[in-house]
Amino acid sequence: MSKLVIVGTVAFDAIETPFGKTDKILGGAATFIGLAASQFNVDGAIVSVVGGDFPQEYLDILSSKNLDISGIEIVTEGKTFFWSGKYHNDMNTRDTLVTELNTLADFNPIVPENYKNAEVVVLGNLHPNIQMGVLDQMIKKPKMAILDTMNFWMDCALEELKAVIKRVDVITINDEEARQLTSEYSLVVAARKIHEMGPKYVVIKKGEHGALLFHHNDVFYAPALPLEEVFDPTGAGDTFAGGFAGYLAKTEDFSFENLKNAVIYGSTLASFCVEKFGTERMENLAHKEVHRRLQQFKQLTQFEIELT
Amino acid sequence: MSKLVIVGTVAFDAIETPFGKTDKILGGAATFIGLAASQFNVDGAIVSVVGGDFPQEYLDILSSKNLDISGIEIVTEGKTFFWSGKYHNDMNTRDTLVTELNTLADFNPIVPENYKNAEVVVLGNLHPNIQMGVLDQMIKKPKMAILDTMNFWMDCALEELKAVIKRVDVITINDEEARQLTSEYSLVVAARKIHEMGPKYVVIKKGEHGALLFHHNDVFYAPALPLEEVFDPTGAGDTFAGGFAGYLAKTEDFSFENLKNAVIYGSTLASFCVEKFGTERMENLAHKEVHRRLQQFKQLTQFEIELT
Repeated sequence: MSKLVIVGTVAFDAIETPFGKTDKILGGAATFIGLAASQFNVDGAIVSVVGGDFPQEYLDILSSKNLDISGIEIVTEGKTFFWSGKYHNDMNTRDTLVTELNTLADFNPIVPENYKNAEVVVLGNLHPNIQMGVLDQMIKKPKMAILDTMNFWMDCALEELKAVIKRVDVITINDEEARQLTSEYSLVVAARKIHEMGPKYVVIKKGEHGALLFHHNDVFYAPALPLEEVFDPTGAGDTFAGGFAGYLAKTEDFSFENLKNAVIYGSTLASFCVEKFGTERMENLAHKEVHRRLQQFKQLTQFEIELT
Repeated sequence: MSKLVIVGTVAFDAIETPFGKTDKILGGAATFIGLAASQFNVDGAIVSVVGGDFPQEYLDILSSKNLDISGIEIVTEGKTFFWSGKYHNDMNTRDTLVTELNTLADFNPIVPENYKNAEVVVLGNLHPNIQMGVLDQMIKKPKMAILDTMNFWMDCALEELKAVIKRVDVITINDEEARQLTSEYSLVVAARKIHEMGPKYVVIKKGEHGALLFHHNDVFYAPALPLEEVFDPTGAGDTFAGGFAGYLAKTEDFSFENLKNAVIYGSTLASFCVEKFGTERMENLAHKEVHRRLQQFKQLTQFEIELT
């Protein structure tokens, strides 16, 4: 079992979908990544910052999942990062209504001493300089540094982002963002260009259309489970990354073959995340439910053609 | 080996993509379906109509693939159906520039006598009354009647379309069209509603995102092969249907498990179709190339998770 470090937001979200809306609830990239990774009983730590307004009960949720929260700084006089968004009817696009950085604006991540030798590091979506700050604190090169990012940083901190991309083993990125980063429409060509920027593995997330894992000339495709209803997509990409990283931390096998399994676990956990608002489904997800859904993924994708 | 009847257009296409443009070349749904099905050396017949302007060499191409063309009526004083379209940069959307029905306007399909007992029938995209006319000529109920259709018929001949849908075993339909037909956004719910309209199997085509096969509560997902370049998508959906039908006609196994394989073959053949303009790639496709690409599909989708 490898140690896992997760840096990212721990936040308040307020979400509106065609199915309803929430007040401020528990959200943030590191929250979703941590909840997903905790499915594998990993020894994980979250590095983040919150304000004095952040409820102890939310921190307790993370602790109860065996996640080390000593790296979550509490700025008592500050306020917690807040994001609010509204999804369109197709659930694939959304408008951001509010972004309040609050304590995140001056966030200086501190990796807890006993996690500075972690083998797996997840750099959740944040300013690339913060992501880099975490990598710099590791006392040995992680076996698997996983970067998640988004178009916002390409627009406003591209050079810093490229510097982080150069140092990671895996990048997880949306299809449209892969296209933006490389100016290539073909995802195959875009993945190749991103390889050349540094990462050995490129994961392109296509939302309801699944995810592609590229490793030079090898490609693997994990579909998203076709669902009757997507209730709230918030956190699905982070949950994917958390499942991916948690599985790798547990198995300590960083081969392409095992990364395929990690992608399947990521897709499986993401399929739960979207079933309820926010973190609700992930907070109460039993191992046997995951097991059953993995069976569904097998039935969904496995076939037996005799090649003659 | 089952007999296969294919009804659909045999036509001229003129295509413009970001990569170039063609004059009038060989096209049409039945052409692409037939070429794909011919990969399985099936005993297939095409039912269609062309004008006196249709080159003998195009008919010879179909004959050379062991396709019976006695059901292609030649109206010497008429002109062949002509479609012209221009693809946008994303290759997923296109504008129709010209549609000349010509001889298709009065097409009265005649199934050759010795194919009226065919076990597999493909109703390519055409007016539903023509599709129904072919079903009516079959002297025994086919084991597998496969319907392909599009939004155009939903707009102008919905009741006739529903009557055909009621009588077929499989429908292949695009995702957006499945949504239009059922007024449901979720493809899972849309597929269920289409089941209720008649077909035991529902295949929803998602273009570059692959295809879903539904059979009541079972789902199977065949991705599209991620390609560096899609050169010309024309005929990809028909090629999918032709590969699907050809494989079923060859194997004569109409179980869900075998339909999974048929979907994989359909996706595999479609991945070749888009590599060149029109029918060019499909005319010169060797068995061993298909075999190699099926291996790629296995690598793309198969994984080995130990479920504990």
